[in-house]
Amino acid sequence: MNIDQDALQKQITFIKEIDKLKYIQRKTRLFNSDRHENDAEHSWHLAMMAMILAEHSNTSVNLLRVIKMLLIHDIVEIDAGDTFLFDTKKNHTNTEEELKAAKRIFGILPEEQAKQLVDLWLEFEAGETEDAAFAKAMDRFEPMLQNASNQGGTWAEFNVSYETVIDKKKKIGNGSETIWDYARKLLDESVEKGHLKKE
Amino acid sequence: MNIDQDALQKQITFIKEIDKLKYIQRKTRLFNSDRHENDAEHSWHLAMMAMILAEHSNTSVNLLRVIKMLLIHDIVEIDAGDTFLFDTKKNHTNTEEELKAAKRIFGILPEEQAKQLVDLWLEFEAGETEDAAFAKAMDRFEPMLQNASNQGGTWAEFNVSYETVIDKKKKIGNGSETIWDYARKLLDESVEKGHLKKE
Repeated sequence: MNIDQDALQKQITFIKEIDKLKYIQRKTRLFNSDRHENDAEHSWHLAMMAMILAEHSNTSVNLLRVIKMLLIHDIVEIDAGDTFLFDTKKNHTNTEEELKAAKRIFGILPEEQAKQLVDLWLEFEAGETEDAAFAKAMDRFEPMLQNASNQGGTWAEFNVSYETVIDKKKKIGNGSETIWDYARKLLDESVEKGHLKKE
Repeated sequence: MNIDQDALQKQITFIKEIDKLKYIQRKTRLFNSDRHENDAEHSWHLAMMAMILAEHSNTSVNLLRVIKMLLIHDIVEIDAGDTFLFDTKKNHTNTEEELKAAKRIFGILPEEQAKQLVDLWLEFEAGETEDAAFAKAMDRFEPMLQNASNQGGTWAEFNVSYETVIDKKKKIGNGSETIWDYARKLLDESVEKGHLKKE
């Protein structure tokens, strides 16, 4: 087998492996729906959001990098499972379990490509670069839209307060002040409708 | 409402509308599985494939454009439904129904953005540019991998012959000769295993 074919075989093994993302269920549900969203659908939706909303980012982002981050950001959950943002027991940050998962799954790819994707995923997790801040804003904004369409969704289901949502979501403003303004209005409306409770 | 907020409101209406892609079922099934794939999962998987396999394209493609095409390519099916590649009654090309759907759904967006996406979708459908040829290659290759993992999948289910598969899939070579070589070997293996029949 030549080098090209060897790389292609590894890449196809990876493409088959990540099919498992379609089985990872999130806590949130589709818009106006009882059906839980899975991680592959979620990743598609976030990539679409980045593409559609890029003009609202605080700074000029590299859209290809942002979309790549969003396409891969949950792949670690194939091994590590979904971590719920409002989970009070588990830290929703870059756990050792997730890093191990990233190394195993991206490690199926040719070495250089694997390294690039692990680095890109770590950049997303850290959320510090402009590209990662905007990508993270998409990841935080989508479930807000879903919950608002579902009479409070996971806020109501898991007794999450307005103040906690504000605290967990305020970093949206690091990616886009315009979207954070919109998101706060959405939260105020949810409070008015009785779908989200103040402490 | 200022211009920015007006644009954002339209974009969010669009983001909610395309959630419906998660309900559009394809004929093909997930890898080694009985579960049908939906269009959102499929679109995510193709975008991932383009990102991972770009080095094998015949020419140097604009990966951001390719990924955008793949993210949006099936959105018209929200109105027009899934068209099966091997359907003998319905032409799997750019139908009037799909164009009408593209105009309605992308038309939710601000005018300039709507036009860009309709044009990008039309470019994908035509499959003539280098970017579109590579994007189309991904769309044709994924179900081959799935069928090969599912004892023939839709080839067996709908009595599709080796010759028909070759005819419908050969344009993969327009995007990537390397991937088309791989795909033909996969078909030969499927014939050997009895999962795909020659005429």
